[in-house]
Amino acid sequence: MTRTFAFDLDAFRKDLDGIAIEDNPALVKQKSRDFFWYSPILKGQLEHVTGDLVATPKDEAEVIRILKAAFAHDVPVTPRGGGTGNYGQAMPLSRGLILNLAEMNKVKAIHPGRVICEPGAIIAQIDKETRAHSGQELRLHPSTYATASIAGYVAGGSGGVGSIRWGGLRDIGNVLRLRVVTMEAEPRILELTGWELHKVMHAYGTNGIITEVEMPLTAAYDWVDVLVGFDQWMDTVRYCDALGNADGLLLKEIAAIAAPVPHTYFLRHQKFIPEGKSVAVLMVAPHAMDAFLAFTARAKGEVLFRADTAADPKGLPPAYELAWNHTTLRALRVDPSITYIQTMFAPPTHIEKIETITRLFGDEVPGHLEFVRFDGKITPMGLSLIRHTTNERLEEIMRLHEENGCPIFNPHRYTLEEGGMKQTDLVQLDFKREADPKGLLNPGKMIAWEDPSFDFAAQKTYLFPGLQQTG
Amino acid sequence: MTRTFAFDLDAFRKDLDGIAIEDNPALVKQKSRDFFWYSPILKGQLEHVTGDLVATPKDEAEVIRILKAAFAHDVPVTPRGGGTGNYGQAMPLSRGLILNLAEMNKVKAIHPGRVICEPGAIIAQIDKETRAHSGQELRLHPSTYATASIAGYVAGGSGGVGSIRWGGLRDIGNVLRLRVVTMEAEPRILELTGWELHKVMHAYGTNGIITEVEMPLTAAYDWVDVLVGFDQWMDTVRYCDALGNADGLLLKEIAAIAAPVPHTYFLRHQKFIPEGKSVAVLMVAPHAMDAFLAFTARAKGEVLFRADTAADPKGLPPAYELAWNHTTLRALRVDPSITYIQTMFAPPTHIEKIETITRLFGDEVPGHLEFVRFDGKITPMGLSLIRHTTNERLEEIMRLHEENGCPIFNPHRYTLEEGGMKQTDLVQLDFKREADPKGLLNPGKMIAWEDPSFDFAAQKTYLFPGLQQTG
Ligand SMILES: Cc1cc2nc3c(=O)[nH]c(=O)nc-3n(C[C@H](O)[C@H](O)[C@H](O)COP(=O)(O)OP(=O)(O)OC[C@H]3O[C@@H](n4cnc5c(N)ncnc54)[C@H](O)[C@@H]3O)c2cc1C
Ligand SMILES: Cc1cc2nc3c(=O)[nH]c(=O)nc-3n(C[C@H](O)[C@H](O)[C@H](O)COP(=O)(O)OP(=O)(O)OC[C@H]3O[C@@H](n4cnc5c(N)ncnc54)[C@H](O)[C@@H]3O)c2cc1C
Repeated sequence: MTRTFAFDLDAFRKDLDGIAIEDNPALVKQKSRDFFWYSPILKGQLEHVTGDLVATPKDEAEVIRILKAAFAHDVPVTPRGGGTGNYGQAMPLSRGLILNLAEMNKVKAIHPGRVICEPGAIIAQIDKETRAHSGQELRLHPSTYATASIAGYVAGGSGGVGSIRWGGLRDIGNVLRLRVVTMEAEPRILELTGWELHKVMHAYGTNGIITEVEMPLTAAYDWVDVLVGFDQWMDTVRYCDALGNADGLLLKEIAAIAAPVPHTYFLRHQKFIPEGKSVAVLMVAPHAMDAFLAFTARAKGEVLFRADTAADPKGLPPAYELAWNHTTLRALRVDPSITYIQTMFAPPTHIEKIETITRLFGDEVPGHLEFVRFDGKITPMGLSLIRHTTNERLEEIMRLHEENGCPIFNPHRYTLEEGGMKQTDLVQLDFKREADPKGLLNPGKMIAWEDPSFDFAAQKTYLFPGLQQTG
Repeated sequence: MTRTFAFDLDAFRKDLDGIAIEDNPALVKQKSRDFFWYSPILKGQLEHVTGDLVATPKDEAEVIRILKAAFAHDVPVTPRGGGTGNYGQAMPLSRGLILNLAEMNKVKAIHPGRVICEPGAIIAQIDKETRAHSGQELRLHPSTYATASIAGYVAGGSGGVGSIRWGGLRDIGNVLRLRVVTMEAEPRILELTGWELHKVMHAYGTNGIITEVEMPLTAAYDWVDVLVGFDQWMDTVRYCDALGNADGLLLKEIAAIAAPVPHTYFLRHQKFIPEGKSVAVLMVAPHAMDAFLAFTARAKGEVLFRADTAADPKGLPPAYELAWNHTTLRALRVDPSITYIQTMFAPPTHIEKIETITRLFGDEVPGHLEFVRFDGKITPMGLSLIRHTTNERLEEIMRLHEENGCPIFNPHRYTLEEGGMKQTDLVQLDFKREADPKGLLNPGKMIAWEDPSFDFAAQKTYLFPGLQQTG
């Protein structure tokens, strides 16, 4: 089903009269990019990608007008929140329209245990309002807290800070309701709850535009940022694992990062981190500090930094901006040759697997683990750094992980399937058939739609033909 | 170290001048009992137990005066909160004084994430005040919520409602601080935090009197009581297990109870429960209901009752009063021959172990599981009912559990060790040496103190000589 999109841009534009539009090529290109350049592979593939136009609706009625016009004129539409995605998720591979939801950013209602917002609401801003309203906050947020939108998180993210307590975004209950507009001649408005949410969650905006999000809230605390150091990487790993399994200790973030990464790349924290130390990056509830310190002392962890008693914590980034993909970002800023991979060390043999991988690669693949709940079990997810040499070696490193029982979620692919489970998601595909019959939403991201005969087992990378044509 | 306590009651009384005292034998006996009679074995052993006197201090200064006098006169002292313990925990095996802490029941301070109370504060009352103050509640409570004291819970309890989220009381972080008065010539006041808490937690008041308790708080919700029915017991078990492992679903209680128990013994809920149904007893956060119902529908569970939409939920006991030891209580009220045992089905083979036990005993041991977090893993704890015939068969049932890999926490013993890990707790023993050098606090409950040469491996029941002498 190799398609090119031919459309009359001027005619389309006319239908958008009264809606905020941007067509300055430099500005359009800026809004056509995300953090794809973390990947040396995607960097080559997506560098040239740009849309034709950016439309910025101010409400759902304008979203509907835009989709209706795009449907009529066969214009591809790529929704965009904060544009902080990592894999070209929000990049318009077939040009067309960028649907910028940044101005639909209101928090609409706050109740005990839940918040209702517009799609473009910035995650940190939501927390600010729910904290002020009733001492509540979101369960989960990406480390791009300060700039990511809530709908972009639901459509493109997977978990993050808080996952140690609540699991991932996909876990039922972590998103309560989505309001979605379809891409049809007459766009419909759907309200999804329960299992139906999976139709559009983590679908990269390929099968509907989210116009309202309802998320669960939990109690907000003044989380204390703490860095705990160890001389041995594996001691750090075991400490984090035990900490995650300590049911009475309330933490919001547990990451383990191998030396020399913390000292070398965490520049603003460098003075706290001796060179050889592997570090646990933690967010601890204030009322858990006593028990946490007792636990840490028994594990012989050295508290290198704690924000609640630090002399001058101002000017330091928050702990979560040392974790998740911010670890990679900080490394990249110092050494542009760094990239990363995502992997999983499934219990009960997670410790052994981490030992194996560490032995196999040493400092070529510095360890970075995010501890999360996965199907009820504390599970270290690898966001390992890579000292990149060639793309062939990068592929080999991933292959060696899989051969050692550590599945890879490949951040060097721009399609849903290759970045995820390497299989067709029938629920999402079916919903795309229903909600985007012309295949205009974010083309090129769902292989199952573009090339139903694609053979995932063949281990070949999918190359979206549309992308080649725009290139 | 067989000891009898000889003391001059009148002289002791004189030293208590000005403190509220009760010596009416009927009233003293009433305050000398707990729920020991759940056990046909303890019923025979402890029926005659009574103290000599009840003292009811109104503040810590009076506690100190009482302990000082008791030390001077060699009077055994057994602390008592609500008297809802199950194993004769608060029963004065060597007579002496009952130290009734019921009047020291104030909530002293509420902060974000923590509450500070006097020892006798009733658990439900604490929650009432913390909810009104700031929408917070205790993480954990026993099903005796309405009548148990907070210090009695810490000194005698193990977990309960909320353990599905937070683990047990013993997990570090679930109790923040205890203030303890020692039993010495000059009683000292100690403040314990971190690992030191284990010195007196679950020590049955044998090594210090708790005069202040600081507990962590979490967000309070209007938990929805739900009963879900299944035709098959093992389907109920698997459902509860999966529910406990669903990281995004916020529940406060998950219990599985085998048919015919729910229909036969839950009299006030009987109209909702068909006869053959095994039942999951649940407390669900209101904002989790949508997702919870989607989850339950997929598992083919039948929602028999939900309090949020029930026509007339008044007059029904709360769900937690169908769970934990209230299951046993409700069964006992209908059939006085019922008793129970406590066991553990450790993952990852918990499902298989439950199947084995079910096959082995059938309706002689109706299944009752409380799902809790244990070392980070969702773990079914058995509070199985027993259709009691003889004490020999009861011992055999317990033995068969252990032979099948299911450790027993024996509720038919009045000592700490036999009800628990069947080994000496050196931390508690050492602290008793320090804080109660004369061994006056709750004599007969800590074997390691009474008979250091006792051989736990020999599988013999410990019989406290003091108890025989008072008999
Ligand atoms: C340094 C760094 C750290 C990160 N840390 C994390 C992390 O901890 N956890 C995590 O999960 N991710 C993380 N990410 C990835 C990303 O930041 C998050 O997923 C973020 O939430 C995306 O939000 P956004 O608003 O920037 O979305 P965008 O990048 O704008 O969009 C993401 C996807 O959602 C689609 N989309 C956006 N809005 C809508 C809408 N209204 N309807 C339908 N589809 C829509 C887009 O088309 C795109 O496919 C990180 C990225 C970086 C660069
Ligand atoms: C129907 C039923 C259901 C139950 N459900 C649960 C449950 O879900 N979870 C659970 O853990 N337990 C449960 N229990 C056991 C018991 O109810 C709880 O442990 C309860 O918290 C005990 O509190 P209390 O105030 O009644 O303590 P008491 O029975 O008065 O005392 C318990 C122990 O603590 C000691 N003690 C009391 N106050 C002090 C003090 N100030 N300083 C030092 N020591 C002290 C006593 O000497 C005694 O050894 C249940 C019991 C029954 C009968």
